[in-house]
Formats: sequence, C-alpha cells, structure tokens
Amino acid sequence: MTVRETCVKAKEHLASISLAGEDKMNLMLIAAAGALREKAQFIIAENRKDIENCTRGAQFVDRLMLDEKRIDGIATGLEKLVQLKCPVGEVLEERELYNGLQLRRVRVPLGVLGIIYEARPNVTADAIGLCIKSGNAVVLRGSKDAIRSNMAVTSVIKDALRESGFDPEFIQLIEDTSRESSVEFMKMNGLIDVLIPRGSASLIRSAVENATVPIIETGTGNCHVYFEKSADIGKALPVLINAKTQRTSVCNACESLLIDEEYAEKHLGEIVAALREKNVEIVACEKCRKILPDLVPATEDDFYAEFLGLKISVKIVSGVEEAIAHINKYGTHHSDCIMTENAEAADKFLDEVDSAAVYVNASTRFTDGFEFGLGAEMGISTQKLHARGPMGLRELTSYKYQIRGNGQIRG
Amino acid sequence: MTVRETCVKAKEHLASISLAGEDKMNLMLIAAAGALREKAQFIIAENRKDIENCTRGAQFVDRLMLDEKRIDGIATGLEKLVQLKCPVGEVLEERELYNGLQLRRVRVPLGVLGIIYEARPNVTADAIGLCIKSGNAVVLRGSKDAIRSNMAVTSVIKDALRESGFDPEFIQLIEDTSRESSVEFMKMNGLIDVLIPRGSASLIRSAVENATVPIIETGTGNCHVYFEKSADIGKALPVLINAKTQRTSVCNACESLLIDEEYAEKHLGEIVAALREKNVEIVACEKCRKILPDLVPATEDDFYAEFLGLKISVKIVSGVEEAIAHINKYGTHHSDCIMTENAEAADKFLDEVDSAAVYVNASTRFTDGFEFGLGAEMGISTQKLHARGPMGLRELTSYKYQIRGNGQIRG
Repeated sequence: MTVRETCVKAKEHLASISLAGEDKMNLMLIAAAGALREKAQFIIAENRKDIENCTRGAQFVDRLMLDEKRIDGIATGLEKLVQLKCPVGEVLEERELYNGLQLRRVRVPLGVLGIIYEARPNVTADAIGLCIKSGNAVVLRGSKDAIRSNMAVTSVIKDALRESGFDPEFIQLIEDTSRESSVEFMKMNGLIDVLIPRGSASLIRSAVENATVPIIETGTGNCHVYFEKSADIGKALPVLINAKTQRTSVCNACESLLIDEEYAEKHLGEIVAALREKNVEIVACEKCRKILPDLVPATEDDFYAEFLGLKISVKIVSGVEEAIAHINKYGTHHSDCIMTENAEAADKFLDEVDSAAVYVNASTRFTDGFEFGLGAEMGISTQKLHARGPMGLRELTSYKYQIRGNGQIRG
Repeated sequence: MTVRETCVKAKEHLASISLAGEDKMNLMLIAAAGALREKAQFIIAENRKDIENCTRGAQFVDRLMLDEKRIDGIATGLEKLVQLKCPVGEVLEERELYNGLQLRRVRVPLGVLGIIYEARPNVTADAIGLCIKSGNAVVLRGSKDAIRSNMAVTSVIKDALRESGFDPEFIQLIEDTSRESSVEFMKMNGLIDVLIPRGSASLIRSAVENATVPIIETGTGNCHVYFEKSADIGKALPVLINAKTQRTSVCNACESLLIDEEYAEKHLGEIVAALREKNVEIVACEKCRKILPDLVPATEDDFYAEFLGLKISVKIVSGVEEAIAHINKYGTHHSDCIMTENAEAADKFLDEVDSAAVYVNASTRFTDGFEFGLGAEMGISTQKLHARGPMGLRELTSYKYQIRGNGQIRG
C-alpha cells in the first residue's frame, strides 16, 4: 500500500474506534495485552532480525531490543490504560442560548493521528493503546531499523482484535520506511488530523519544516535549575543532582544550572564538587571561572544544548530577572525550576518563565504523565497550541459543538 | 524593519501585555476605541488613498472602504471587549500529588500571535482588541491593497496607548506587503507562537503549505443542510432559506442541500421554487433531474465548492448514513445541519458528522462567537487541533503547569 492508501484505510475505519465506547475499548486493550504476552517469542524473533541488520552502537541497540520482560512491561502498560477514564463524550459545556437553542460542547477524538518515531518498538504498542482509549485511528511510521519489530507488534495486536470480533483496521503501519515516505506522510492533509513526532530533535525539526498537517512538537528539553540567592543549599543540591543525574537521556533532565552571583561566591565550590562526584562534566561561564579557574569555559552553543548525558552548563546571573530572561531565550519551554525560600521570587518565576512546567523547589524530572496523575502519555508537548506538557488521553481529544433547535433562523 | 525584526520587537514587548492584568487591558481598549473615533478623519483619508490605488471590483472596494459609521462600529467592538472576562490566570486544575507537590494548571496567553489577512482593515483593529484582552502580543500582516488603512489604524491605536502611559510595542504591523515577506512571516519559528490566517481559501491554503509555525485554519465553510425524510417542511424551508440567503458571503452560509429520496419525491418542487424565489442558482444531481428535468446538472466539483453567493448544490441521498458520509467527504468540517423529527436520526447525525458545529433543526448561520455567547472572535476554526468553531478570548490562550514543592526529588 502507498502512504496515501494506508492513511485512507485508517480514516475509513475511524468510526470503528471513535464510536466504540469505553467497554469495547477496554476489551480491545485486554485482548492486545494478552496477545503480546502470548506471542512474545514471535515478536522477539522478529526483533532479533532487526538487531542483526542494525549497524548502530550499543546504546541504539539497547533501545531497539525487546525481550520477554520488556514485552511484559508493554502489555502491562496497555492494561493500565483500562483503569483510565475514556475522555470521549465528556460534556464540557451545556447552555441554552437566548433564542432557545440548546448548545453542548462535547469532547471527541482528534480523528486520525499520525505518529512518526525512531527505533523504539515499545512506542508502537504504547501509541496504539493510547489511540484505542482516546477513540483515535492511528497511522504509525517507525524507522527502518525497527520495521520487523513494528510489523510484528502491530500484526499481533491487530490479529488479537480481529479474533475478539473487533475491526482492527483503524490501526495502520506504514511499511515503506524511505525518507520520501516520511515526507509524504507529513503532507497527508485531509487524512491525518494531527501528526506527533516522537524522538530526537532532528526528527522533530524535520516534521516542523516539512509537515503541512498540524503537528505537536514534543520532547526537546533544555531544562534549567536556578539557585536563587535565598535557596536552601540542603534542598537545592539534592534537587540539582536528581534533575541532572537520576536519568540523563530523558527530556525532563536538567541541562543547565543558573546561580545568583552572591550565592555562587558562597556555594560554587560545593556545587561543583557534588556534580563531579556524580561524574558530571561541567562547562561554565566566565564569572564561574573567576571563582574556580579550573572550570572548562562554556560556549554560547552550550547554553542552547540538550546534552542528554552527564554534562551541564553553569552560568552566574545577577538575579531572578536575568535568570528568567536566560531561560526564555535559551530554553525549550519544557521544564524549569527555581530553588528559593523567597515567595516573591518564586511567584515571579512561576509567572514569567514561559515553559510547560515551572517548578519551585522540586526536580524537573517530575514532568511526566504518571507523576502528574494523568497516566500514560504520548509525549511532552513543548508548544503552546492545543496541549502543553504531558499529552495524555485528554490531550488526544478535540471537541465539537452540538446544537439542537426547533427551526431557529438568524435574524 | 525586516519581518524578523518586527517579530522580535513584538516578542520583546510581550510581557507588557501578558502581565498587564485585566484593568490595564480594559483601559487600553477604551483608549484605543476613543482614539479611533477621534482620528476617524485621518483614517478615512488614508483609506481613500488605498481605494484610489485599488484596481479591483466594487465588492472588493466595499470590503476595503472605511467611513465614519464603520469606524464607529470598530470602536464599539473594542468597547464590547471590556465586558468580556479576561481568560488569563484562570486556574483550570489544582491538585496535591502523592508526594506533596502542589500542582496547578493555569491559563496563559498563547504568546505572540501572527495574523495574516486580506483587504479588510477592520480586522486590524479587531485582532488588536482580541489580543489586548487575551494578553497576547500580535504581529499583523495585511494585504498591499489596505496597507495605508492598516498603518493608520495601527498608529492611531498605538499612539493612544502610548499617550495613556502604556507600552504599545507588543502590537506590530509588517509594512512590507510583498509575497516574499508573507512566506518569511510564516516561518518565524521561535518568534511567532501561532499563526492565524483570516480570509479566502487560497490564503489559508498558502498558510497550510508554507507555514512552519503552528497555524489555525479558519473559515472555509462548505456547510450542508440535510432534509431527512421525517423533516417538517414548515421548519425545513425557512431554515434552508436562512442558511443559504440571509448572508451569502460568510463561512457559515449553506452551500449544499441533501434530501432523502422519498422526501425529494414529495417536496423537491416546492424546495426549488422557494430557492428560485430568492434568486438562488441551483445545480443538482441526476436523481433530482429525474424528478425535475429542467435543473442544471451539478459536477463533482460543485459538491466540494464554497460558492459564497446565491448558488447551491442539491443532492438526493438514500438516508442519514449516506448524508453523513457525503458531508464528511465533501464538507469542510465547519457547520452542518439535519432537519428531522426523528430522535435517532438526530443523535446519529450529531455524533457522526465530523464538524465544528452540528445542528438539529436550526440554521448554520448561528456558528458565530456572539451567537454562541462567547463574544468577539478571531475566526471559526475548522481544524481539530487546539480549538474548534469560534475562536474567542478563551481559544486565544494556552496553559502552563505551576508546581510548588519543598525539595522533592524523583525516586
């Protein structure tokens, strides 16, 4: 099938999920989870072929690899969606207008979601699960490196739905993994309602530049921790270390530390020592290097960088005003934190930092659907259109106005 | 100034409106309205120069023309915004998480809006007013034909804000009206948060194809009225005539009529007579022409067309199922209506027609911010991402998560 034919097919079968209702959605999720466990050996065998064909490094292969434990985790993820409320049909507003018209605003699925992603086959099942529970059809387009794994996961889930008496064709996988098919997919206006790129900054940039369908930018995180002059060092250091090192490859990890000048004069030594103890490579501004001359100088690009590893940029600022300006300029509007005991500084930071999640005295690592109590998510939106922060089931919906009258006309 | 410099300037001054608060916003609106009335003669003189340079037809000139009455109407529009509640700062959610984190989801402005539009200088003031009351900075890019009018309106409003002690530079107008500047404007990622094209289908298509910033598609309306077999002809005909003829140049006007086969056999004659009495040109499907052979045949393109005039396409369908499929295929997801006395048909239509506003027994002409009780709007969104239907103040906002802790780290 061509990319267009694949998208047409998903759209033609949209109603079989958008109108399914919560009970059927749950049965689908349970059937899919069961089949993944049951057919784990088949999926692992197909995954092994991908790994054999793969010429990339160990970290890449680790993300690509599926084993029984990982497949069980993926299945459990689908089962957890059963507990979450289906958002479709929620009445957001209900009013009678001046002329007797009965107006209701009702939550509806977005329609056909396009998901474009890299060599993480778990995304295949996660995205299918989220789409089932939010009533959306889905067209998946994974990378060449994971194509056999993606085909295996998709076929196991679709077979399970079919065997349970459901139409599975609202789920489609694009099997052509050429660069051309990717760009073509990004221009399926009228067939794809929303495209969500999941993966590296370069994938997201490609979607921003090429897509003509609406997209949601996710997951680029140059997150900051800012030590304001009143910060309690006993809280500030553990939060910094957690945000920077608890998991370094994720979008909500800290990449840059800002410190008030007088605070740095007092504490920079112990901050640097704590980071070095965790093997964090430090690049620092000139003012830091006046205090500790052995620090490696940071370039302008370092302050824009998402290191996704054990590296951090450090900059001394004159106060909350400069910290906010720096974050809004160099950051990616994902998650940023102020450590402070001053209520005024906290409020100013919360109001003026233009990010999806703004923290006072807590690690940026909490920006996550489960941590926020929303459950599984499709990613973290860093744009302001539609949804910001974790994209859970609710964020995968739109709404429509339903208006009932008895012959009203406009005067 | 270049396009980029203009956008940078708007962004640099965003805080002067996003943090202004409702009282100052209202004072700005009142100052702007007063100045428009006071400087009406200057604006009219500048507008006359645009009209003198204009080589287009009478209808075009009519939309471009400003006189005292129209300027007064525009000023009144700004004053009406004072009555509407500013959406910024609304707390959408407030919860304590399992670890004691205090999470709030708060409504915030979208940021810097880009508005690209055609030769309607009233849009200049309307957009400025909506941005003031929703806390957004705005970069306006009108057409060459209205450039003097747009410059006059913008300078009058900005002078009024400056004289009242406010920073007016969150309002920017791109004075370069070349095609290149338009495309450049659509790619101002990092400076423009959302681009809203207002105008013809070709303008919107150009934005969809060229923009790399998030856009909201507005206002293309191929709206349907569907006469289901149980429709009460005494209600159905007035609704059809209202939807088709009350104002033909607007996006919520009816462009296509669907009729159940048995209903057409009984009523097609009087329906056609009622339309012809209002000078509506009719193009019809073959089944209609079997009943009334003098009807002009409709082409496939006619069913996709937004006529924006006294013309309608008519098609006989086998029932509600085919009507819904036709609307979802040929329509623009704007506003569609079923005339029926059958509750089941009504429910099915409301659920399955994939449009921003779906009506039972009422004219499509009601899809409008004021009619829905939302007040002034930036347009009618026909996409599902972010906002659907009338884009009022609420739809011009995003949200952010604000999280307060006392040193929480992720385990």
